[in-house]
Amino acid sequence: MIELTPHLDSERRLPLYEQLYEYIKGEMVKGHLQTGEALPSIRVLAKHLRISRNTVEAAYAQLVAEGYVESRPRKGFIIKEFDKDVWMKLEPPFVIPLSVSPVSRYRYDFRYGHIDTAHFPLRAWRACLNEAMDASREELLWYGERQGERKLRQQIARYLFQARGIHCSDEQVIIGAGIHQITGLLCQLFSPEKNKIAMENPSYDGIRAVFINHRYQVLPISLEQDGLHIAELEQSDATVAYVTPSHQLPLGMVLPIGKRQKLLKWAETRNAFLIEDDYDSEFRYEGKPIPALKALDTQDRVIYIGTFSKVLTPAIRVCYMVLPKQLLSSFYQMFSSYHQPVATVVQKALALFMEKGYLERHIRKMRTVYAKKRQTLIHAIYDHFGEHATIIGEKAGLHLLVHFHHVMDADRLVKEAKGRGIHIYSVAKYWFDSQTSPPPYILLGFGSMTEQEMIEAIQLLKDIVQATRK
Amino acid sequence: MIELTPHLDSERRLPLYEQLYEYIKGEMVKGHLQTGEALPSIRVLAKHLRISRNTVEAAYAQLVAEGYVESRPRKGFIIKEFDKDVWMKLEPPFVIPLSVSPVSRYRYDFRYGHIDTAHFPLRAWRACLNEAMDASREELLWYGERQGERKLRQQIARYLFQARGIHCSDEQVIIGAGIHQITGLLCQLFSPEKNKIAMENPSYDGIRAVFINHRYQVLPISLEQDGLHIAELEQSDATVAYVTPSHQLPLGMVLPIGKRQKLLKWAETRNAFLIEDDYDSEFRYEGKPIPALKALDTQDRVIYIGTFSKVLTPAIRVCYMVLPKQLLSSFYQMFSSYHQPVATVVQKALALFMEKGYLERHIRKMRTVYAKKRQTLIHAIYDHFGEHATIIGEKAGLHLLVHFHHVMDADRLVKEAKGRGIHIYSVAKYWFDSQTSPPPYILLGFGSMTEQEMIEAIQLLKDIVQATRK
Repeated sequence: MIELTPHLDSERRLPLYEQLYEYIKGEMVKGHLQTGEALPSIRVLAKHLRISRNTVEAAYAQLVAEGYVESRPRKGFIIKEFDKDVWMKLEPPFVIPLSVSPVSRYRYDFRYGHIDTAHFPLRAWRACLNEAMDASREELLWYGERQGERKLRQQIARYLFQARGIHCSDEQVIIGAGIHQITGLLCQLFSPEKNKIAMENPSYDGIRAVFINHRYQVLPISLEQDGLHIAELEQSDATVAYVTPSHQLPLGMVLPIGKRQKLLKWAETRNAFLIEDDYDSEFRYEGKPIPALKALDTQDRVIYIGTFSKVLTPAIRVCYMVLPKQLLSSFYQMFSSYHQPVATVVQKALALFMEKGYLERHIRKMRTVYAKKRQTLIHAIYDHFGEHATIIGEKAGLHLLVHFHHVMDADRLVKEAKGRGIHIYSVAKYWFDSQTSPPPYILLGFGSMTEQEMIEAIQLLKDIVQATRK
Repeated sequence: MIELTPHLDSERRLPLYEQLYEYIKGEMVKGHLQTGEALPSIRVLAKHLRISRNTVEAAYAQLVAEGYVESRPRKGFIIKEFDKDVWMKLEPPFVIPLSVSPVSRYRYDFRYGHIDTAHFPLRAWRACLNEAMDASREELLWYGERQGERKLRQQIARYLFQARGIHCSDEQVIIGAGIHQITGLLCQLFSPEKNKIAMENPSYDGIRAVFINHRYQVLPISLEQDGLHIAELEQSDATVAYVTPSHQLPLGMVLPIGKRQKLLKWAETRNAFLIEDDYDSEFRYEGKPIPALKALDTQDRVIYIGTFSKVLTPAIRVCYMVLPKQLLSSFYQMFSSYHQPVATVVQKALALFMEKGYLERHIRKMRTVYAKKRQTLIHAIYDHFGEHATIIGEKAGLHLLVHFHHVMDADRLVKEAKGRGIHIYSVAKYWFDSQTSPPPYILLGFGSMTEQEMIEAIQLLKDIVQATRK
């Protein structure tokens, strides 16, 4: 029996089974292992090298698959005759320095987009997921409906009607796997002459990337105190505009009804489309509710986009859009061979979750939770900074912006804070042109922070801001 | 107390709650309902109209949200003063004739892409899904890693190594929500001068649609008896080629090793990329296994695409690609703000399913199941048609093509068969140019049919074919 004692290094990027495979192949090429010899049994080698049997099995299976070794009943793994020339030297796998971890490295993290997980109704969600698994095998295991499960689309239509005043049929609702995927569909859907898209400046960099990656020309439109500069839009030659009327991202203003009507008028006159990203509409803390742009859309010009990322969890990766009726036939035509991107079981579970009223209950609860967090954060800022800080964009959503007076270099402040274990965010990336320096606002997302953490972090931030001002 | 007796029609497209809402608003506008009057309680009206309380609640909630009605403690729902002019007449929701049902209308359906559901390890899958739910709240509820859960990518890298001889690091593996979404990313990733994509003619219409929808020029390359016409590719000015070497879609030939090497040489010489769609590689019934194109890719020119749709189920919507190392930095740069489209819990469950060896076991089992189905189908065809039918593309995968001699009009045969409850498929849609008439092959997918069903269907088909020949 051959003894194999490779140096296997679990710190290397190359998995252990691959290291073992490479070692055995190397020994064969060098002539240390000869045709007809038997490799140690999986059990013996695993024990000898103190690695799992799976690892040895994987290495052996590959040697068998590539014809270097043969598995013979009761004889084990026998080395076959082979031609040394076919040995192909492969480079070691490439090492990428990048690795995204969902867990923050900072003691306090004001990340935008993170939600409160403590109050998530995990039991109810799990029950829905399990109930969804009770569907028939065909329903669970075949491709589902292309535009999404009908039951989920019906629930969404009902929800939009109640929560946002939007009248739509479930036939207009398209389920998607996150806003980047669904906006990608829109980029394919627009006719080639609609190649100029207006966006608020600043605006969501993630969506801007989608448009640019699809080779659209993106036109920045400035913001006024109360949102989009309509006259500037009118002067542009855009034929599509992407807007965030319920809570401008990142500045946070709510677009007043008058401007909404002007926007709709613009779309009608120009034969243009409006993409309404209603991402933060469920959490409003002040002021009267304003109907969604889509609710006022008598001319069928608004593409409405909503998501479950904020109201439930981003981890289920479900969003949706409501298409104008005039776009539906092109949609069906262009995507007749595409499949629905969201797993059937997730869609079914979500439909049940909505049908049983869990979603509405959760949103009601979270409104209180987030309102309290927001209040605590605002109080903490005023307690420590008094008149030396200005808060904006706090009327809705899960983040606000703060300007610490006399702090002109937001990047430096962010860096100093990181050094003290606090992750706060510059808003620079939301602007189109990174040359023109954006106002030195700091973005604070309060979704995932506890009230105690926010109080502690703002207290610490006071010293850091004072040091930065000097 | 007002009595409301609307005519609610559950056959209408408009949901009941919306019909009720419209009715009440209409009554207000007409003056039948006056300011200060109370609507019936939810319980009473639900009972009266024999509809669910949810329905009444939804209608009332919307009336409250829009300010027509006020909810007062112990008084119920009171009609508020309102301005008749703000009443906005909305059109009834649009009716779309299209509705995709996953359930076949035919007694026998030879649909391509459907899998055998009877042997799916539902219990093991459910257990993995439940175990995945035991992860920490943060892991389960926040955005996951952009390119996919690391554990799943590691399992895929291990699987590809064992099953396909591919050496790659998990950093090269990108998880996607189906081939249309992931190919959409590729369309964004290629530099603008790479705007001409060669495809086999015939080829998968779904992917062709993705390229065309992204405004790529798609160049058809003919097939020879043994697959892609390499000389024709060399004469084209394509800089990307999409190929299905392990089981050409739809014709089913397996690309021989010599042509694989020529393809790789072409990519190297032209500074081009090859997209290898390895969709059917797991089920091979004849001939020696040939390594994947990616396994031979020493020059880092192959983008490998694999899917769980065939080996497990399309309903989880998980696929993956292995990117050449040279494309990784562009990938990270272009998509740094995109989120992973597959739900975290599904990825975690799948990683567990693979780690525990369920996937390998399932594939081994299904190889036998599908081999038997294929054998039964082939025998049934020969039993009933003898030398009057030719089968091609049967060496791998879940479908084969058959030519019933002297049947020149495949479309007519398909139509006649439908009339008898048998859904068989024409291959016309796979060709680029529907003008030039494709060979009259019939596509028979045998994944979801039982052996008994296939025997019955082929027997029935005999009469239909005879009638069509006349």
